[in-house]
Order: sequence, then C-alpha cells, then structure tokens
Amino acid sequence: MVLMIVMTKYIRPHQHSTDRQSRSELKGHHAAVLWFTGLSGSGKSTVANAVEKELNQKYHAHTYLLDGDNIRTGLNKDLGFSAEDRTENIRRIGEVAKLFVDAGLIVLTAFISPFREDRKTVRDLLEAGDFVEIFVQCPLEVCEQRDPKGLYQKARLGEIQNFTGLNSPYEEPESPELTLDTSVLTVMECVERVIQYLKDQTILRD
Amino acid sequence: MVLMIVMTKYIRPHQHSTDRQSRSELKGHHAAVLWFTGLSGSGKSTVANAVEKELNQKYHAHTYLLDGDNIRTGLNKDLGFSAEDRTENIRRIGEVAKLFVDAGLIVLTAFISPFREDRKTVRDLLEAGDFVEIFVQCPLEVCEQRDPKGLYQKARLGEIQNFTGLNSPYEEPESPELTLDTSVLTVMECVERVIQYLKDQTILRD
Repeated sequence: MVLMIVMTKYIRPHQHSTDRQSRSELKGHHAAVLWFTGLSGSGKSTVANAVEKELNQKYHAHTYLLDGDNIRTGLNKDLGFSAEDRTENIRRIGEVAKLFVDAGLIVLTAFISPFREDRKTVRDLLEAGDFVEIFVQCPLEVCEQRDPKGLYQKARLGEIQNFTGLNSPYEEPESPELTLDTSVLTVMECVERVIQYLKDQTILRD
Repeated sequence: MVLMIVMTKYIRPHQHSTDRQSRSELKGHHAAVLWFTGLSGSGKSTVANAVEKELNQKYHAHTYLLDGDNIRTGLNKDLGFSAEDRTENIRRIGEVAKLFVDAGLIVLTAFISPFREDRKTVRDLLEAGDFVEIFVQCPLEVCEQRDPKGLYQKARLGEIQNFTGLNSPYEEPESPELTLDTSVLTVMECVERVIQYLKDQTILRD
C-alpha cells in the first residue's frame, strides 16, 4: 500500500519544471546564438572572444563560446572534414547551441561553417530572432597572409585536403544579421557593432 | 600599412577569455553533473526535475536538465537503440554535459545509461568530483507496474526490441555517489538527499 502511494508520485508527464522564460528573467538578458562564420584567419575566434569578454565584464551576461577547441576535441572528435562530416559537425553544434539557448545563455560559436544550407539548418532549429548570423568578412589574400595557425601554408603544400577557400568552397551569407570586415575594422570596432546590434534587438538591456 | 596594424590584432592564440572559475564566481555555486541512471520507470526524470526545481527556487542555482525530450529529438536523433548507438548516445551526452559544466552550470541528466563502461567514460571526461552518479534504484517489477510511458507493455508485446531490464541488460552502478530507492523514498526525500550531498561536497553553499 505504501508502495502504491509512492508510485503515484512518479506517474505524471515529465514537464520541465524550469523553463527558458524563468531562466532568462534570472539573468537580465535574452538568450541567443551569435553565429560567427568566415574563412580560416578571418578573425572569428578573436572577435567572438572579445565579444564574450565584453558581455561578461560590462553586462554580466551569462555566455558560452563553442569553437574548435572544445568541440572538435570532444563531441565531434569522430568527425573529419568531408562535406558530409562538415554538415554533421554543424548540425551537432547547432543542436548544442539550441540547448544553451534553452538554458538561457548567450552562446557564441566560431566555426568556418562554409555551407549556406548548414547554417540555414541551424537557423531553422531556433526561434526567429534567436539566431544572429555574423559574417566575419575578410579577403582570402588577407586571411592567407595572416595564417595564424599555418593552415594555409599546409594546404598549399598539399598537407591538408578540402581546405575552405582554396579547394573547398566558402558560401558567403546572403543576408546575415551583421557583417564585420576585419580587414578594415579593429577588434573593438567589431565588438561595438555586435553589442549595438544586441541592444537594438533588446537581447541585451542597455 | 593600416591593414598590417589591424592584422596583428588577430594573430594571437585563442585563449578563452572567460574561464570556468570566473563563471562559477558569478553564480555562487560550483558546476557539476548530476547523472541519474536507472531503469525506465525508476523515477529518474521525476527526481531530476524536482531536484532542478529546488536548486532554482531555493538556491538560485543555474541549472540545465538533459533528458530524452531534448536530446533524442535533437542532437541524437540520428541514433537508435543498438548497443553501439546507446554507447554513442551516452558519449555525446557526456560531452555536452562537460560543456555545460565548463559554462558553470549544474547539469542534470536523466537517461537509463545501462552500461557501466559508458558511464565510466563520462566520469573520466570530467574532473574528479564533477561527476555525481546517482543510482535511481527500483525493482524491475515496480518499474514495470508503473510503466508511465507504456513502454514495458510494448516491449512485452515485442513492439520494442532491446528494452533495458527485459531483453537488454542494466548494469547497476558499483560505487555511485548516491543511491535513491524510489520504491521506498518519496520524491521529496530523494531531493533532500541530493541537496544534502551537494552541500556536503560544497558544490552548493548552505
């Protein structure tokens, strides 16, 4: 009989007790994905890191940055760089970003994400306004000159296959929420534009 | 020349600007994974939901719950229930939980996670003390009697293959951080034990 009483407590649908709304209220900002896309060396990670720092220090926003360092070595370590694997890479990152948005965070992602359709898949996963596509624009020549990780050099020597911009396409965003040309803007100018956009969209409160 | 000046700003290693320590300080609690494991119908989701609610309302903790509802329909929708896919299912959940811990959250997971080795894989991903294995213990007969989703019935009728406890093994934890017998404890008694454990480990401040 005791058993029966205990049991009834368990027989109910599993509604999540804590929803996105209440999480968002706790933090004083809205959740969103800031999706930085662009060529290797365009400055995605640098700008994303600087934006995150500003969001934390000045706005006390709860943020998280997804990039190659924490994704390619973990969740997606089973994936390579074929077109199929790149698509699956972006799909999983999109799904994880969605979970972080549901948890109420501003999540920043810094991946080349070269294919338009893959980025659209992520956009479609999220509610309207939650996906902020930020095109980190920079001429290929400039990216190759920067070559911060020496990847262009390796690709030119044939040591890396399917390298975006050289022998694998980068499909530029057609209507990104923001475009940042890092060949003319400083990092802080990029940060200011992103912050201003977030304020304009009331993702961030002034 | 201007171009060169801008470029140097980008050429630096991508250290994450915001680390786990500073995130944890922001929130006043430590990050951890509360990994609920047990048979279908044992009460994992019910207890995890109740713990999350308590953590939010009483301790203003920043939490997130990973369960079938948000994982099997999203990140892991490409996976089935073969032994191989179950292992990959748990691996990915472990990697996502690790990201949430890095973001400073207390993440709760509610998955059967029947294989000891898979749970060990997740434990090994995390730093010592960050993985709290909670065995939601309940006799199979009681779980089957509860059958909140009608899954045992379907499995008995042969409509579901590889059903844990019937024709697929459940490997009980050998030394879980906590064991909650839901055939004798009420939901609130389970919650109290989890909260007490978190306080004892100073994951939660009193």
